[in-house]
Amino acid sequence: MSSGAAWQAAVDRDAVGCAMHHLIAELYPICRSITGHGVRETLRVLAREVPLVVHEVPSGTPVFDWTVPNEWNIRDAYVKDSRGERVIDFQQSNLHVMGYSVPIHRTLSLAELRSHLHTLPEHPDWIPYRTSYYRPEWGFCLSDRQLATLGEDEYEVCIDATLAPGHLTYGEYYLPGATTDEVLISAHVCHPSLGNDNLSGVALAAFLARQLGALPRRYSYRFLFIPGTIGAITWLCAHQHDVANIRHGLVLACVGDAGHVSYKRSRRGDAAIDRAVAHVLKHAGGRHDVEDFAPDGYDERQFCSPGFDLPVGRLSRTPHGRFAEYHTSADDLDFVRPAALADSFALCLAVLSLLEHNATYVNQNPKCEPQLGRRGLYRVMGGYQDQLVEESALLWALNLSDGRHSLLDIAERAGMQFESVRRAAELLAAHELLRQNPNPAVP
Amino acid sequence: MSSGAAWQAAVDRDAVGCAMHHLIAELYPICRSITGHGVRETLRVLAREVPLVVHEVPSGTPVFDWTVPNEWNIRDAYVKDSRGERVIDFQQSNLHVMGYSVPIHRTLSLAELRSHLHTLPEHPDWIPYRTSYYRPEWGFCLSDRQLATLGEDEYEVCIDATLAPGHLTYGEYYLPGATTDEVLISAHVCHPSLGNDNLSGVALAAFLARQLGALPRRYSYRFLFIPGTIGAITWLCAHQHDVANIRHGLVLACVGDAGHVSYKRSRRGDAAIDRAVAHVLKHAGGRHDVEDFAPDGYDERQFCSPGFDLPVGRLSRTPHGRFAEYHTSADDLDFVRPAALADSFALCLAVLSLLEHNATYVNQNPKCEPQLGRRGLYRVMGGYQDQLVEESALLWALNLSDGRHSLLDIAERAGMQFESVRRAAELLAAHELLRQNPNPAVP
Amino acid sequence: MSSGAAWQAAVDRDAVGCAMHHLIAELYPICRSITGHGVRETLRVLAREVPLVVHEVPSGTPVFDWTVPNEWNIRDAYVKDSRGERVIDFQQSNLHVMGYSVPIHRTLSLAELRSHLHTLPEHPDWIPYRTSYYRPEWGFCLSDRQLATLGEDEYEVCIDATLAPGHLTYGEYYLPGATTDEVLISAHVCHPSLGNDNLSGVALAAFLARQLGALPRRYSYRFLFIPGTIGAITWLCAHQHDVANIRHGLVLACVGDAGHVSYKRSRRGDAAIDRAVAHVLKHAGGRHDVEDFAPDGYDERQFCSPGFDLPVGRLSRTPHGRFAEYHTSADDLDFVRPAALADSFALCLAVLSLLEHNATYVNQNPKCEPQLGRRGLYRVMGGYQDQLVEESALLWALNLSDGRHSLLDIAERAGMQFESVRRAAELLAAHELLRQNPNPAVP
Repeated sequence: MSSGAAWQAAVDRDAVGCAMHHLIAELYPICRSITGHGVRETLRVLAREVPLVVHEVPSGTPVFDWTVPNEWNIRDAYVKDSRGERVIDFQQSNLHVMGYSVPIHRTLSLAELRSHLHTLPEHPDWIPYRTSYYRPEWGFCLSDRQLATLGEDEYEVCIDATLAPGHLTYGEYYLPGATTDEVLISAHVCHPSLGNDNLSGVALAAFLARQLGALPRRYSYRFLFIPGTIGAITWLCAHQHDVANIRHGLVLACVGDAGHVSYKRSRRGDAAIDRAVAHVLKHAGGRHDVEDFAPDGYDERQFCSPGFDLPVGRLSRTPHGRFAEYHTSADDLDFVRPAALADSFALCLAVLSLLEHNATYVNQNPKCEPQLGRRGLYRVMGGYQDQLVEESALLWALNLSDGRHSLLDIAERAGMQFESVRRAAELLAAHELLRQNPNPAVP
Repeated sequence: MSSGAAWQAAVDRDAVGCAMHHLIAELYPICRSITGHGVRETLRVLAREVPLVVHEVPSGTPVFDWTVPNEWNIRDAYVKDSRGERVIDFQQSNLHVMGYSVPIHRTLSLAELRSHLHTLPEHPDWIPYRTSYYRPEWGFCLSDRQLATLGEDEYEVCIDATLAPGHLTYGEYYLPGATTDEVLISAHVCHPSLGNDNLSGVALAAFLARQLGALPRRYSYRFLFIPGTIGAITWLCAHQHDVANIRHGLVLACVGDAGHVSYKRSRRGDAAIDRAVAHVLKHAGGRHDVEDFAPDGYDERQFCSPGFDLPVGRLSRTPHGRFAEYHTSADDLDFVRPAALADSFALCLAVLSLLEHNATYVNQNPKCEPQLGRRGLYRVMGGYQDQLVEESALLWALNLSDGRHSLLDIAERAGMQFESVRRAAELLAAHELLRQNPNPAVP
Repeated sequence: MSSGAAWQAAVDRDAVGCAMHHLIAELYPICRSITGHGVRETLRVLAREVPLVVHEVPSGTPVFDWTVPNEWNIRDAYVKDSRGERVIDFQQSNLHVMGYSVPIHRTLSLAELRSHLHTLPEHPDWIPYRTSYYRPEWGFCLSDRQLATLGEDEYEVCIDATLAPGHLTYGEYYLPGATTDEVLISAHVCHPSLGNDNLSGVALAAFLARQLGALPRRYSYRFLFIPGTIGAITWLCAHQHDVANIRHGLVLACVGDAGHVSYKRSRRGDAAIDRAVAHVLKHAGGRHDVEDFAPDGYDERQFCSPGFDLPVGRLSRTPHGRFAEYHTSADDLDFVRPAALADSFALCLAVLSLLEHNATYVNQNPKCEPQLGRRGLYRVMGGYQDQLVEESALLWALNLSDGRHSLLDIAERAGMQFESVRRAAELLAAHELLRQNPNPAVP
């Protein structure tokens, strides 16, 4: 089976979607943050799927303009009323504690307590997700309805956490291919019990890694499971002289909700990854958005900083901040759908297949058309009949294979699916009418 | 009279349209194919209008990836029923025999015969046009209604044809101009009794050749009357080192039906011929289509193959395959209209006039405007009044004649007709305010 | 106060608009033409506002393709009926006499007189404005209603004018800045009692000159108060080797009517002035037009002639010839509005401020984002909240400050106001995160 055929082999979407959702469900209860045991535990589970390497970077390590922070670990946290009942309980939901809260154990009046409580009045049943990584604070998050039940009382507040020198932990998996040219796939692993943001991206990256391992590969693939921002900065700082191999990249975030796909272009705007995703989405036919780069969002901010300017885009369904459930307890296991996960998985595979098989050919018979008929490549009768799509793809591939047009260029100009043009080109190459250009100017 | 004025002189459209239609009617009964006496007879008639040279290329001659085929000639063909009546008769219509049918003389049952019969059920009164150039087959074409009248019987089938080494025949007419820069005009002559496809293109090329002979010419013109595909390949193979002179070109096909004009751009997409046709069509005001190049169609496929990539577009009215009558007996003398032929003729003349007179000038007084008033080129009163179009053309020609902008560039930027800008530039040149740039970067 | 803050300081629009209108009212009665005392008197008044230098160029001086004409001065003019009553009286309106009329003193019948009378039948109460600079003629202009009252009679016609060697007069004011790079501001001063065309432009130039004198300036500014066409040609001829310093320029004409703003691009079409005006207008939010260059109009014709091709656009409200009052007595002091003048003034200041502060910076921390939080430049809490505009501008300025993008480039790509990006960049520069690129490729 050819590489193209192997990549195009059908995927059992139901099975993939369910398996991804199961993995998400297993990871969901873990209390993750940008450092600490939650990330380690998450990577331990992922290592079952993907033979990733776990890296530990000591607190205090300078990374560009930043410093790796102290490690935060939490055992328990609660607010008890004067009767000793836990009115806010970390054991119920790890969102109840503001991430990176400093340890505390005190008794406070309701008024004192209130300035440390965060709610979402517009969604009175949801618990918000809050953090304070770089300012020493403590806080609790709870539903607005829960807050309303708290009366005047003396409250015992306890956050049994440690914030002390340790490590920043991340996972990396390098899957070698035929060349050292790399595709980077990155997902942030620093959010606690939130499904779409970003256990969806973590699961998608893991399943892609497993799938790609079984496929023929021109590219090598590097998968990063890293804490957002500081993790990306830490990784880039350690690998700043190695990133020249990166040809294409995707940040995966919020890829499991029921909304349609949104792709955010790389800073370059016309990188092959940008064109490949747009092409696949356009021919997939459904609703989708392709947006220009902007310097906000997830770790594409770092990969696309001007000193790197890597060809890395971001794939999401409904992007962060545009769904009400974002950074709340409503971004739960129900919010993430197996069908949406499977669709994101299939889209990524199609995009990577395009990049794997994009090539530039040179017509070996460039003056006039070759005689396709005697090679069995042409309609036999010369009269009028419905033109086959395949014939049109053959003609386009022959006409534009002048060494300057990649298969994607040809597909775009012809308004045809990449796959049609690829199959045509491979057929023509098998008949020695095209020859692959080993050193095209464009990948 | 200046060249511009000579080219703009009025054409008697009624007379031209009728004369073209008469020529088509004379050529219509001849049974043409890609080789054989039908093409020779056609060129003999055309030679009355245009002093063309007839070339004969032997069967078996290798031409790029192809070989010049055996010559096919047919004297008679029929299907007779058991009573000896011709139920299908080549003498009635040369479309009844599939082009390049191998000779046959046998008796067959209706069932055996049927697999060699072609009809058009969706147009039961029309005879389809079919060929089998490169696979040895035989066949008859007939109307679906005629087929229905054939009962069980023993049928005598006769195709009295020869398919044997001979020649491929084409006509070429070279009309020299002031320079060796060439305009190529090509029409395919390989179709039997079909009017629009392509006796319309043949007649248009012939009438253009005659008209251009009487006009002052910067360009030399090369007219090709060639069999489709194999004729173009044969000509290109013989002239592959001479085509560098070709500056502009048009394939003429299906130019006589009542539909609006369609122009198909060259592979380059922005060649001068592409811009010139688009400009003339836009300012002509009627409905028209300008389409991007695609590697299907007529001999633009060969002229625009990547090894040549010549600036050759295709002019049609309703393009092949988009009218129901295409490749059927309904593409007859009624389907081709004198008024449409005359309109195509006038359009070609306007396009060629633009290319002939497109030039780049250099303003001899480039700093500030020259004083047009003292040369009688300006409104005399300085106050407000309706600005004349001509004055605006003078100002545009002065402002953009910096040696980089051709008159077509200026007309496009000004949104004015090319003719207005040309007349303005020639007037300014007569006043020595502009001087023609003899060696512009762009033709 | 920083330069940016100084330029952004609020302008009292009411006061500026009224002051400009007062200046216009003072200049309105003066009978100006392309030469003569009217221009001198006008410059004398302007010199009170702006320390301009008055230049006198002798009649007969050759200037490119033109010659400085004789000087025209008029003391009185009238048409008297046989009873000695002035039925047309220059003392009532200087529009009554055709500009540059040759002197005359004769008695004529009504029929003889009529061929020298100009009216506007479509606006029977308005007096048209007419000139005949380069053909020796004389004429009177009057309302159509006034013409109807003239009966058969002997009329004494007197134009007490001189047309004799003298000078062409113009005013120039050079306001030096930190560099010798220049901004050119030009307004024509050759029209008599017409408000919008062009006392509005004259007043706007004068008030800008005064305002700019009080502001920190990177650029030097050159203000021209010149007769239209011949004045621009005369100035350009004298300074043809000095214009290389001109980086940006605006012709100001018809900037006081109640219509919306129209900007006409320079011949280059994408000069910084073109982009700056379009940017300011777009973000100002109101209705406006930005039009491509065309070689008609005011002195942009000369500045943008191909031998100069200066980056000079034209700012107007309703452009010349598109308002009924154009070149008639209805273009009076009522037609020019203080609010419109003030709006044009504010627009010019905003555009000039953009050009003054447009700069290219280089990110000093280009690999990954800098840690804004520890510099107090970031939202303190890491959770979700409304993103501040300022933060977005910081991120854009950091991401695109790679030495290739100017602040205007960044603002355009970000879809943000220039001012937001400028403030962000200056804040980042104050924190040494950006450094200005002293020699950017683009200004």
